[in-house]
Amino acid sequence: MEIAELGEFGLIRHLTDTIEIQNAETRKGVGDDCAVLEYPAGRQILVTTDLLMEGVHFDLQYTPMKHLGYKSAMVNLSDIYAMNGRPRQMTVSLAVSKRFQVEDLEQFYEGLRLACEQHHCDIVGGDTTSSLTGLAISITCIGDVEKGKAVYRNGARDTDLICVTGDLGAAYMGLQLLEREKSVYNAQIQEARQRGQDLSSLPPFQPDFSGREYLLERQLKPEARKDIIDELNKADIIPTAMMDISDGLSSELHHICTQSNVGCRIYEERIPLDYQTAVMAEELNMNVTTCALNGGEDYELLFTVPLTMHDRVSAIPGVKVIGHITKAELGLQLVCRDGTEMELKAQGWNPLKSEKAKSDE
Amino acid sequence: MEIAELGEFGLIRHLTDTIEIQNAETRKGVGDDCAVLEYPAGRQILVTTDLLMEGVHFDLQYTPMKHLGYKSAMVNLSDIYAMNGRPRQMTVSLAVSKRFQVEDLEQFYEGLRLACEQHHCDIVGGDTTSSLTGLAISITCIGDVEKGKAVYRNGARDTDLICVTGDLGAAYMGLQLLEREKSVYNAQIQEARQRGQDLSSLPPFQPDFSGREYLLERQLKPEARKDIIDELNKADIIPTAMMDISDGLSSELHHICTQSNVGCRIYEERIPLDYQTAVMAEELNMNVTTCALNGGEDYELLFTVPLTMHDRVSAIPGVKVIGHITKAELGLQLVCRDGTEMELKAQGWNPLKSEKAKSDE
Repeated sequence: MEIAELGEFGLIRHLTDTIEIQNAETRKGVGDDCAVLEYPAGRQILVTTDLLMEGVHFDLQYTPMKHLGYKSAMVNLSDIYAMNGRPRQMTVSLAVSKRFQVEDLEQFYEGLRLACEQHHCDIVGGDTTSSLTGLAISITCIGDVEKGKAVYRNGARDTDLICVTGDLGAAYMGLQLLEREKSVYNAQIQEARQRGQDLSSLPPFQPDFSGREYLLERQLKPEARKDIIDELNKADIIPTAMMDISDGLSSELHHICTQSNVGCRIYEERIPLDYQTAVMAEELNMNVTTCALNGGEDYELLFTVPLTMHDRVSAIPGVKVIGHITKAELGLQLVCRDGTEMELKAQGWNPLKSEKAKSDE
Repeated sequence: MEIAELGEFGLIRHLTDTIEIQNAETRKGVGDDCAVLEYPAGRQILVTTDLLMEGVHFDLQYTPMKHLGYKSAMVNLSDIYAMNGRPRQMTVSLAVSKRFQVEDLEQFYEGLRLACEQHHCDIVGGDTTSSLTGLAISITCIGDVEKGKAVYRNGARDTDLICVTGDLGAAYMGLQLLEREKSVYNAQIQEARQRGQDLSSLPPFQPDFSGREYLLERQLKPEARKDIIDELNKADIIPTAMMDISDGLSSELHHICTQSNVGCRIYEERIPLDYQTAVMAEELNMNVTTCALNGGEDYELLFTVPLTMHDRVSAIPGVKVIGHITKAELGLQLVCRDGTEMELKAQGWNPLKSEKAKSDE
């Protein structure tokens, strides 16, 4: 169905009509000038926002709309958990070009709603409009946290333990895999065109993803670590600093160390890696540690806790201690497998930085 | 300066470094995974968001970046006032293509900050990223209102008075004027090109805006009606329904009547118009009432109050009673200057609706 048939308000109604409000804090959702929220006394409110652009943040050639909706929600939910908070509400704005159909947006919303239901987050509003080229997605997520329990980036102290959840680098390897198969596919199409062959006569393209399902899942369907926040809460641990790993471990450690005015020392051998990540890096002739440090899009949590909490934090499944905080003057150090030390550089994904500026660093 | 020289975090620091927090409710602004807000007990929180796309919502050929920043803020502030609330915080996301320089974004932020300072609103975060083509702007504004005092669209009752602020149609006339001068300019350039003339030898283009300054201002520099909310508050008036006029009076009356399950009757002769709007409409051979009803981008307030408040509401400068609410079965009626009645159609600006779908209505 053409989006133009419904118009803006028709489309919004169509996509949001059946949304059920899950949180008592949501007093009014979609349908007025503003959403209206009411939080009980003693809560602080968290706000995070992301703007995702087609061709920069996602490639629709290999990203199904449903996965895109799911991931767009997850990257924002992840920021709320990274403050030790709980997501409650979300606004969703989309700008779509003429090549999108109502069914595409239904798929997007299906993914979005799946993510929101899992995380008890209400979709309370947004904006749906047109764009001249491509798809733009802007999501704002609102959450809450008990007063005094928000965890910032600036609280890490000398001797604190540095912890990460899950494993790193897999989402980046998933991206490499998808990009590789896309190149193979596009090359086949181009060859067929050059031969003057009818494209519909080509055998269906079979991308080679066997044994790499985990990498694809990490790239296309990341999961915000609500479970870890639950576990930390159960274990009565409030991290001294925390953030989510979206641009790469190395870049995030720089943020925490700069804002906390400390240094750090992490151990290469302790960086959690999945077997598939290592195999794929080997195949692509890439250093797997570099991928884990700078790959990005892991949406795992990076946090610090006092040294005395070593046993309690180590007992949480999926949490790994990878090093410790040091005095600022010791800088950011990576202790390699062979015992040598090197300075950690922040080379994470940066959509606005030129290759030149990166290499100058 | 090239944006790539600064990179994402450098650019954000550059643009937000000198922002001063104005509200006690803002506990943490730019610089962490989330902004952190804390509202006193008894307040409800308002959230509104807008996504503006180059070529759809604005034309940089005649919109200075500073004005664009100012207007982007205003359209969101206006939504907060339309709930009878006060703006407190704003997040600002930008996606920019390579043709933008740091100076362009500085100008945008200058306009944004001017608007935010006037309305005591803190810029608390956002996202700055790249786009393949054009500029995308996503703003989310957060405000608050005393519990029980939020004004929705669904509270209008039979016999309530319908009020509008300021005057209508001028922003739309301003747009027509800018588009006309743009066409003249582009035609001159094209002719010179066809003659093979050096473009730099052309005399500077002088758009003809004399005596039309008000129309330009209404299009390029709209003002959210904080003053009216202050006056209503002073006069102890809480409207029964309210919204801001962004898509056109006619479209907004449809929203209020549908959500309140009522009809309305407004009088053509009472619709507030500026002299320049009337002159420009005449010149363009357009019906000025149609422009006022369907033009959009006025960012004035439309609200209803009980009949008993007639004298109090009429005493507020800039507020005009244009009609009254009726029973739903009487529909939405416009009483023309000659006494005839016609049905009000919602033909406001709709970025997603095809011309065909509009004419089918």
